[in-house]
Amino acid sequence: MKLWQKNTTVNQAVDAFTVGQDRILDLNLAPFDVLGSLAHTQMLQHIGLLTEEELALIQNELKVIYQEIIQGKFQIEEEVEDIHSQIELLLTRRIGEAGKKIHAGRSRNDQVLVDLKLYFRHEIEAVVQLVKSVFETFQRLSNQHKAVLMPGYTHLQIAMPSSFGLWFGAYAESLVDDLELMLAAWKVVNKNPLGSAAGYGSSFPLDRQMTTDLLGFQSMNYNVVYAQMGRGKSERILAQGLSSIAATLAKWAMDCCLYMGQNYKFIGFPDHLTTGSSIMPHKKNPDVLELIRSRCNKIQALPNEIALMTTNLPAGYHRDLQLLKENLFPAFTSLKECLEMTQLMLENIAINSDILSDSKYDYLFSVEVVNQLVLNGTPFREAYKTIGLAIEDGQYQPTKEVEHTHQGSIGNLMNEEIKVVFDAVYQTFGFDQVKNKLVRLVL
Amino acid sequence: MKLWQKNTTVNQAVDAFTVGQDRILDLNLAPFDVLGSLAHTQMLQHIGLLTEEELALIQNELKVIYQEIIQGKFQIEEEVEDIHSQIELLLTRRIGEAGKKIHAGRSRNDQVLVDLKLYFRHEIEAVVQLVKSVFETFQRLSNQHKAVLMPGYTHLQIAMPSSFGLWFGAYAESLVDDLELMLAAWKVVNKNPLGSAAGYGSSFPLDRQMTTDLLGFQSMNYNVVYAQMGRGKSERILAQGLSSIAATLAKWAMDCCLYMGQNYKFIGFPDHLTTGSSIMPHKKNPDVLELIRSRCNKIQALPNEIALMTTNLPAGYHRDLQLLKENLFPAFTSLKECLEMTQLMLENIAINSDILSDSKYDYLFSVEVVNQLVLNGTPFREAYKTIGLAIEDGQYQPTKEVEHTHQGSIGNLMNEEIKVVFDAVYQTFGFDQVKNKLVRLVL
Amino acid sequence: MKLWQKNTTVNQAVDAFTVGQDRILDLNLAPFDVLGSLAHTQMLQHIGLLTEEELALIQNELKVIYQEIIQGKFQIEEEVEDIHSQIELLLTRRIGEAGKKIHAGRSRNDQVLVDLKLYFRHEIEAVVQLVKSVFETFQRLSNQHKAVLMPGYTHLQIAMPSSFGLWFGAYAESLVDDLELMLAAWKVVNKNPLGSAAGYGSSFPLDRQMTTDLLGFQSMNYNVVYAQMGRGKSERILAQGLSSIAATLAKWAMDCCLYMGQNYKFIGFPDHLTTGSSIMPHKKNPDVLELIRSRCNKIQALPNEIALMTTNLPAGYHRDLQLLKENLFPAFTSLKECLEMTQLMLENIAINSDILSDSKYDYLFSVEVVNQLVLNGTPFREAYKTIGLAIEDGQYQPTKEVEHTHQGSIGNLMNEEIKVVFDAVYQTFGFDQVKNKLVRLVL
Amino acid sequence: MKLWQKNTTVNQAVDAFTVGQDRILDLNLAPFDVLGSLAHTQMLQHIGLLTEEELALIQNELKVIYQEIIQGKFQIEEEVEDIHSQIELLLTRRIGEAGKKIHAGRSRNDQVLVDLKLYFRHEIEAVVQLVKSVFETFQRLSNQHKAVLMPGYTHLQIAMPSSFGLWFGAYAESLVDDLELMLAAWKVVNKNPLGSAAGYGSSFPLDRQMTTDLLGFQSMNYNVVYAQMGRGKSERILAQGLSSIAATLAKWAMDCCLYMGQNYKFIGFPDHLTTGSSIMPHKKNPDVLELIRSRCNKIQALPNEIALMTTNLPAGYHRDLQLLKENLFPAFTSLKECLEMTQLMLENIAINSDILSDSKYDYLFSVEVVNQLVLNGTPFREAYKTIGLAIEDGQYQPTKEVEHTHQGSIGNLMNEEIKVVFDAVYQTFGFDQVKNKLVRLVL
Repeated sequence: MKLWQKNTTVNQAVDAFTVGQDRILDLNLAPFDVLGSLAHTQMLQHIGLLTEEELALIQNELKVIYQEIIQGKFQIEEEVEDIHSQIELLLTRRIGEAGKKIHAGRSRNDQVLVDLKLYFRHEIEAVVQLVKSVFETFQRLSNQHKAVLMPGYTHLQIAMPSSFGLWFGAYAESLVDDLELMLAAWKVVNKNPLGSAAGYGSSFPLDRQMTTDLLGFQSMNYNVVYAQMGRGKSERILAQGLSSIAATLAKWAMDCCLYMGQNYKFIGFPDHLTTGSSIMPHKKNPDVLELIRSRCNKIQALPNEIALMTTNLPAGYHRDLQLLKENLFPAFTSLKECLEMTQLMLENIAINSDILSDSKYDYLFSVEVVNQLVLNGTPFREAYKTIGLAIEDGQYQPTKEVEHTHQGSIGNLMNEEIKVVFDAVYQTFGFDQVKNKLVRLVL
Repeated sequence: MKLWQKNTTVNQAVDAFTVGQDRILDLNLAPFDVLGSLAHTQMLQHIGLLTEEELALIQNELKVIYQEIIQGKFQIEEEVEDIHSQIELLLTRRIGEAGKKIHAGRSRNDQVLVDLKLYFRHEIEAVVQLVKSVFETFQRLSNQHKAVLMPGYTHLQIAMPSSFGLWFGAYAESLVDDLELMLAAWKVVNKNPLGSAAGYGSSFPLDRQMTTDLLGFQSMNYNVVYAQMGRGKSERILAQGLSSIAATLAKWAMDCCLYMGQNYKFIGFPDHLTTGSSIMPHKKNPDVLELIRSRCNKIQALPNEIALMTTNLPAGYHRDLQLLKENLFPAFTSLKECLEMTQLMLENIAINSDILSDSKYDYLFSVEVVNQLVLNGTPFREAYKTIGLAIEDGQYQPTKEVEHTHQGSIGNLMNEEIKVVFDAVYQTFGFDQVKNKLVRLVL
Repeated sequence: MKLWQKNTTVNQAVDAFTVGQDRILDLNLAPFDVLGSLAHTQMLQHIGLLTEEELALIQNELKVIYQEIIQGKFQIEEEVEDIHSQIELLLTRRIGEAGKKIHAGRSRNDQVLVDLKLYFRHEIEAVVQLVKSVFETFQRLSNQHKAVLMPGYTHLQIAMPSSFGLWFGAYAESLVDDLELMLAAWKVVNKNPLGSAAGYGSSFPLDRQMTTDLLGFQSMNYNVVYAQMGRGKSERILAQGLSSIAATLAKWAMDCCLYMGQNYKFIGFPDHLTTGSSIMPHKKNPDVLELIRSRCNKIQALPNEIALMTTNLPAGYHRDLQLLKENLFPAFTSLKECLEMTQLMLENIAINSDILSDSKYDYLFSVEVVNQLVLNGTPFREAYKTIGLAIEDGQYQPTKEVEHTHQGSIGNLMNEEIKVVFDAVYQTFGFDQVKNKLVRLVL
Repeated sequence: MKLWQKNTTVNQAVDAFTVGQDRILDLNLAPFDVLGSLAHTQMLQHIGLLTEEELALIQNELKVIYQEIIQGKFQIEEEVEDIHSQIELLLTRRIGEAGKKIHAGRSRNDQVLVDLKLYFRHEIEAVVQLVKSVFETFQRLSNQHKAVLMPGYTHLQIAMPSSFGLWFGAYAESLVDDLELMLAAWKVVNKNPLGSAAGYGSSFPLDRQMTTDLLGFQSMNYNVVYAQMGRGKSERILAQGLSSIAATLAKWAMDCCLYMGQNYKFIGFPDHLTTGSSIMPHKKNPDVLELIRSRCNKIQALPNEIALMTTNLPAGYHRDLQLLKENLFPAFTSLKECLEMTQLMLENIAINSDILSDSKYDYLFSVEVVNQLVLNGTPFREAYKTIGLAIEDGQYQPTKEVEHTHQGSIGNLMNEEIKVVFDAVYQTFGFDQVKNKLVRLVL
């Protein structure tokens, strides 16, 4: 049964091909589809397209359906095309004629658009909360191990003294910048497309400000052509936000894989968080970290995939856009799992506090010695040459002491200041306001 | 129960995270895993690591399991880590101690490598057979409609006369070049990695030439380090082959979407192959074509995804490689479906044989007139100016006749010659030889 | 002459290979390198590493060099490795020993980092100013042509009435969301990395807050490891910002190419903004628009290129990062040119105000009729069926009137509200504050 | 002066925007443009569009111009639009009217297409010759160091014994598979598009087989619509071929960067092939290898860029295609330089022949011991458990001997067989035949 089906039987193969994975993926949208309808119908009554009685009937039943969805009791029946039809069908089956009226002033297009935006907001919040937790853990570890030195590398060559305080702290600060991207995605997503119909508006006197307020959107996608044009674009921007976080996790995982190896031995994880090999009994493999890395690299490929699927499409809806869900929806789940695994690994990380006693790290301190000469009055370029020659002649003696005091250095990590910046970005999302609005809708 | 599990309980979350979708995706590998073991065990007996009796027992039971897999009776039990463990478990359960010996001289790494290569060969053949069918249909339509003219565009501007013969024929010829890429992928894939163990070979006196012959591989991945290094690389090359075909289909689908629009009206499809709109009752939407386009564009993004997931990984196996299956395996299915749908659409395409009677296409013939002047002796640049000015002055009169006779032109499509080239590339794969070898293994 | 050159002669081929295009690309960084040194040296004097006299000498001469750069009188001498060496060389040549002291407490790494950030800020502002101008032009055209109807398409099928007011206005609103991405990039870029040295800080008692203030940065990249880790990441985020604007321009250009074709004829451009063909005298080709499209699509590929070049690199500087300039720096120029060309094309666009008189657009109004029935009391699904059947039976009569009044629809474009949002984002950059700081440095 | 310029002055900014970097990039095409014209005009005379006298005049002068180009005496004059116009202008200036006749039966489109194909063939050969040289060097080093053991890693964990023989040999074999991709690109490129005019053929009785033979093409792009459609596609396939080689070099460079670090110390390079640091006097940085890696990763991004720039463009020429040169042409140069640098680095590589004496590599040999037990009759899974427990209990004793004898293992590298396969692919290109044809054209 399809809404647009008239007298012809749709070829079954075509049907399977066009529906694809929508029936599964769209289950994610179910609660949000009801939320959208709750707002839309309040508005329809407000502009006279529903009576108060009809509205009461509809609202009651939609709230029941919402609860069923939340409790996992909802499913799409065999014959039903999609989630939107299923919900409308349930409603009509239960309350009769009134149920058929809720689609007035709305197209499948803007219905899907608003579902997606509500879903994206929900997922952004879930991701950001996990980021917050990982951020705090990185900071905790940074503070905890701030006194433990490790080598700093450039070009994968031993370069200068670093510390676990710096290493953990750097990844915390990286997440601050990632959050800026997520915030941009949030702002783009947090605008109401409902009322744009098929992308060209409607002759009904819709009150789009009303649904904007009811659904807790910051503002609306004003221009109806733009509301439709935002599809694909919102997804790409969101994927960029996800991929920024993913890049940070992947880099950290790469560090860990390297540092766990027998050639570095900077860190370790307990046996139950590593895996073995079927043929090399002594191995403790960092599979979890490798999978964080590869999953995150996969997420990094997503914005480009979306670009390839949307580029050069002229204005107006194309069915292509529906396929964007296929890799984007699972990316949310995957990134959330990666964040949880990062959290778990961080909570179990063991660090080697005696790395620098190995003589191969002696050269780490050469710059310290150069700088000491400078502080004692030697011009920099001269001090530099002196030590360079001393090293070439084997005369160089390391002083294994580090006294870095400036902002952001080993002795002055400024984790508090970084936290202040993180919290400021986090607060800007305003998750609570949004949640309060939605709670009011389903009460 | 995991092979590498010793005394510690593996954290459940870690387990779910690391297994991911492997249990589902690896079902694709089941028959090929058995084929690999059939060859591997013959070789083990040959070099004295199995007795003749053990081999007979193993071969019989593996063939039974193979039939069960083919008949869909095979599944991975709850507690079993992966497909390879499941098959080994079944075997041991049924034939006892002998079953435990089949893993000698083999690592999980080269076992997976050979499974993948056998699976890839199978999928390449399936794709190529469908390409052959679509190629032939394009050619049939080209021949059938060779007399029907249509406008040729450059810069999306009406340019010169073209024909449906040229349009269909061009896509046929495009598939010839795509097949060259698939052939390169086939050659890279059709080499035996078995015997490379974990990527560093084995102290067993394996006879890798024997398994190469038994499994119908062209040759082997000789160097065992390279056999492992080929993972990720084979996948990327294969994805490039798929994406080349995909690019051809996507381009054709784009043409169709444009040409079906009311502004072109060059082609049409019956109602049961188009879909309607929930709010615009007159619409006949080309959803099937849009989904061919978008699915194919998604496949075009795959080589880059694989590159991103493998770049900058040093030599040696990394768990990252296991994740490559996630988008690659479904891409085979998706491309095969796109080829089938292209076939279906082509079989039902209706063409407009009266396009050029519309006066907006009069200018199409301007070059014909220029060339006529040249053939009558006017230097080209002068003829060109003359007609240019005639058009500017509104004096230009089209002659709606086209006499193109050279190779590959409207009047001389050379479809036969294109077919000869296609067939030559097709024959080079040698699918039958490969099949004959595998049939012998499971008899 | 290289700073790090000691006793060995560097192979010339190696030299050419490693320098690559740096000497050309780095000219972009010249003024910013001086600005960085002006701030750095003020700080050095403040912490006692330069005397007041030395500082005065240095500041005077750096300001002279700054003016020379601005006036185009600066160049890198044959023998000099890079821009940074050249500036230091000039300084030392002119003021002697004091010149050699400016590199204290600084590494080439953080010097380059701060140069890049200052340059990126400069380019972001230049791009955003052009975006502002294009935004305003789209809005002006939207207001000017708000009464001119055009067909709205979905699936490239004629769907519903739209207008030039909507079409132009949609692209204006698209730029608002693009600006959010640029703002995120700005925030990431507008943090001071100076003082992070080679990525591990320094034993000098640097006052990083002082250089942060002097250079007008919002805050600093606190953690010195993160300051270095931000390289590549800043570039990727910035490229995402550029690619978002690029996607909007490319889509508009695609629309124009389609709408200029003889099958649409919605818009036109004067002859001097189109190009001709060497063999088809009547053609007016939209080369400018095609090049906007392709250049912008190329920019869309940039974030992925950067991801591929940086993925899986462990923490710490790698020379790879230096190559990121090669496509990023020209992308600024290219996008600015595309924005200028878009501006030029918009200023010269001619629109067809009589599109809908063509009978092929009659069906556009079918939804209007459905809605009219609904407003008169018919349930939506019934009205929908009625009109669907009327169309099938050829009974349908269009009413070529459109009365859309809701927010963002044909009759109520809300351009003013969109401008308010644009201006709010634009103001958040705070370009003037930044400029004021820099002006003070070079006075 | 533009061929298509009539009465209007083209806006200068538009001019600069549309010409872009063509005038520089197209210099690469100059000799090939002449070769194309030499063949085209012979054909024109053959079909009666040029007299024998005209042909003689034209051929003579084109050969002179060819020599001027080869000798670097050719340049594009200020006022001339492009390389093709410049050559035609020179010709006409020197031999008068006859020069104007050479464009008959040809469009700028197929002229550019044939130039590109000839240029691509030339570059493919240049790349393949360098690949051959690098291949042979990898093999030489593999043979030379076949007895030197090194650790083999999986998951970046020490796993099993490997050797420099395997490591060098693996990269040699990797290039064999890369060559298959280049061969596919060669086959796609080695087809003649000349005679397809603007993509729709011509009313002249062109003899396309004749130009195909004269220019040494394997066959022609038969269908004229496909000949044009091949643009963008050829470039993408070619970029995939380049990126396959690039991936091999990048991976090797990554290994080297890791292995040069103080934590591995497997290999080294002389001072004149490494670079220093401005602040860390002891550093020997692998800049050359990092730049090989990053340049090659950049090349790996190229196929995707081309896909993004061509996807969803309907059939027929678009100006977008002209922009594909911008990153593709420099990619040839960059890859050739990377191959040369790889060659140089390989020729200077020093290997550490005493790696395994370090006790951290003791576990490498655990699998050897397991296998020894198996060869003595213990079932594999039991042997595996025994050794696993021995390691856990600290009872394990390594035997630092490796006796791997099977094909492709440490003791049996099969470099000869790999060379046979390489040579077979190399021969298939048939560079000499092509060269002989072209030499005959310019004699």
